[in-house]
Amino acid sequence: MTVEVVIGIDIGGTYTKMGIADRSGNLYYEAFIETDKYDDPNLFADAIRERINNFLENEKEKYKLMGIGVGAPNANYYTGNIEFAPNLIWKGVIPFAEIFSTKFNLPVAITNDANAAAIGEMVFGAAQNMKNFLMITLGTGLGSGIIVNGDLVYGHDGFAGELGHVNVVENGRKCGCGKRGCLETYVSATGIKRTVFELLSSETDETIFRKTTFDKLEAKDITDAAIAGDPIAKKAFKRTGIMLGKALADTVAHISPQAIFLFGGLAKAGSWIFDPTKCAMDENVLEIFRGKIKILPSALLDKNIAVLGAAALVWKEI
Amino acid sequence: MTVEVVIGIDIGGTYTKMGIADRSGNLYYEAFIETDKYDDPNLFADAIRERINNFLENEKEKYKLMGIGVGAPNANYYTGNIEFAPNLIWKGVIPFAEIFSTKFNLPVAITNDANAAAIGEMVFGAAQNMKNFLMITLGTGLGSGIIVNGDLVYGHDGFAGELGHVNVVENGRKCGCGKRGCLETYVSATGIKRTVFELLSSETDETIFRKTTFDKLEAKDITDAAIAGDPIAKKAFKRTGIMLGKALADTVAHISPQAIFLFGGLAKAGSWIFDPTKCAMDENVLEIFRGKIKILPSALLDKNIAVLGAAALVWKEI
Repeated sequence: MTVEVVIGIDIGGTYTKMGIADRSGNLYYEAFIETDKYDDPNLFADAIRERINNFLENEKEKYKLMGIGVGAPNANYYTGNIEFAPNLIWKGVIPFAEIFSTKFNLPVAITNDANAAAIGEMVFGAAQNMKNFLMITLGTGLGSGIIVNGDLVYGHDGFAGELGHVNVVENGRKCGCGKRGCLETYVSATGIKRTVFELLSSETDETIFRKTTFDKLEAKDITDAAIAGDPIAKKAFKRTGIMLGKALADTVAHISPQAIFLFGGLAKAGSWIFDPTKCAMDENVLEIFRGKIKILPSALLDKNIAVLGAAALVWKEI
Repeated sequence: MTVEVVIGIDIGGTYTKMGIADRSGNLYYEAFIETDKYDDPNLFADAIRERINNFLENEKEKYKLMGIGVGAPNANYYTGNIEFAPNLIWKGVIPFAEIFSTKFNLPVAITNDANAAAIGEMVFGAAQNMKNFLMITLGTGLGSGIIVNGDLVYGHDGFAGELGHVNVVENGRKCGCGKRGCLETYVSATGIKRTVFELLSSETDETIFRKTTFDKLEAKDITDAAIAGDPIAKKAFKRTGIMLGKALADTVAHISPQAIFLFGGLAKAGSWIFDPTKCAMDENVLEIFRGKIKILPSALLDKNIAVLGAAALVWKEI
């Protein structure tokens, strides 16, 4: 029997992951290539096609390809383009959906990685019965995908859900976007690292971080240190959670979600990040919302949510 | 020929306005009753029915009643209830939709007044071709209605769009909701009045407001004074607009709207409020949004938007 499948592609600055998934989220094939090796997006698409074709060659009877879903930074669902992505090798506006649909002769849907994660959670994860929820992805930056009435919010121009750039501190930390005080300068792998260095300056606690350089420190080290009882690591998580919780309180006032999912490296720190976030959010919402909105780890934390989300995106279209 | 019509009802703390409207927003009848005269919501519904029936008695052949739309503070679209409305005479949870559908034997849809205004703008006003926009109503408080993908955002529990209660100043002004620093304590008729009194304390400008008591001052006086060149009135508008613009920048990051409409007394102050709002919003959004999002006066500023919005709400349902 032939199984209907789609290709899910998760494009990151360094690596691009791909997978072949059915409607239930079963992955039959997984692979990756190095994104930054291909300075021409056409050659990049060729490389993916080659991998997929090699796999399918011996399985022709078994799978029927139905479409391609792509999650990528700065991808615009409406235009199908990747637009001015600071972390990708391709500059300017790349007609990504068009390139892929030409190469594969298949329908292609594209959106940013956080939106893909939100759809992945809705189709394959813990949000399968939810119509209104929020996905926060905590990586180098902070991404978000908003689901309202069971649909992703793209907004007028396809750029909705940029919660990493809401303003949380007046004249605060400089952000890669050019503004100051954006949420992701505090709440992200980079943000918590900056917080550790702020704490090194303001506090006197003994901590392993006094022997670390800024360039060497990774978010994972902060999680490990918090678990080991390091006071600066613990304070850094608390501050990060409070900042996130306050920002989420304002998001709650906008969309009144049933739940908020956290995904990404920082979300793996468990109660170190979840407890202060939950607490600060509840302190800052209207009473009608207090205690009602769940903050949950993504159910796909250890799975390839980005590839599954990209696959789910195109399943929603076809 | 019979015209299909609906009843639109706008319930306020003091007055309740009603109207009979067709699908195009033509009003064939308008009336009001005093809300706080009826301490039993059933008697209130009877009073409205009496007015409507008196009008229809001689026009029986002419109109066919199709439904009832209600805009009211703290009204929940999902439950049909008015829930714990601080400014209404009825306390607790009132099954409003049920009471009206029983009395009139018609379908009833109910939502809060700002949501009704958003729907009114979409169905009868300047947002007729828009799928993603925001309505801000500036009255005693600040209300908001969010339209995404052409639908009102109610959220999981019906309480989405509470932008009056996003947090804008840490430990800021005390709000009626119990929190501190909510947007509506700065941006609303009451908010700008508080700002005038803050400016009386911090500035030394000559101003007519040094001869006014807090209780007597009305937002309209501040508009008149700004037009007459009063420096404190001008500063108060500027601060109010900056505060609103900054908050709207965060809303833009959430939903990427095509336009933001302002409605209510303060919106009638024109460029005094629009210019600083627009300027502060553009300063605080990501570059991809800058200069793209229109801030517009509601096209229904001088019409009975609340009644029309309530009518539009039920037209959307039936």
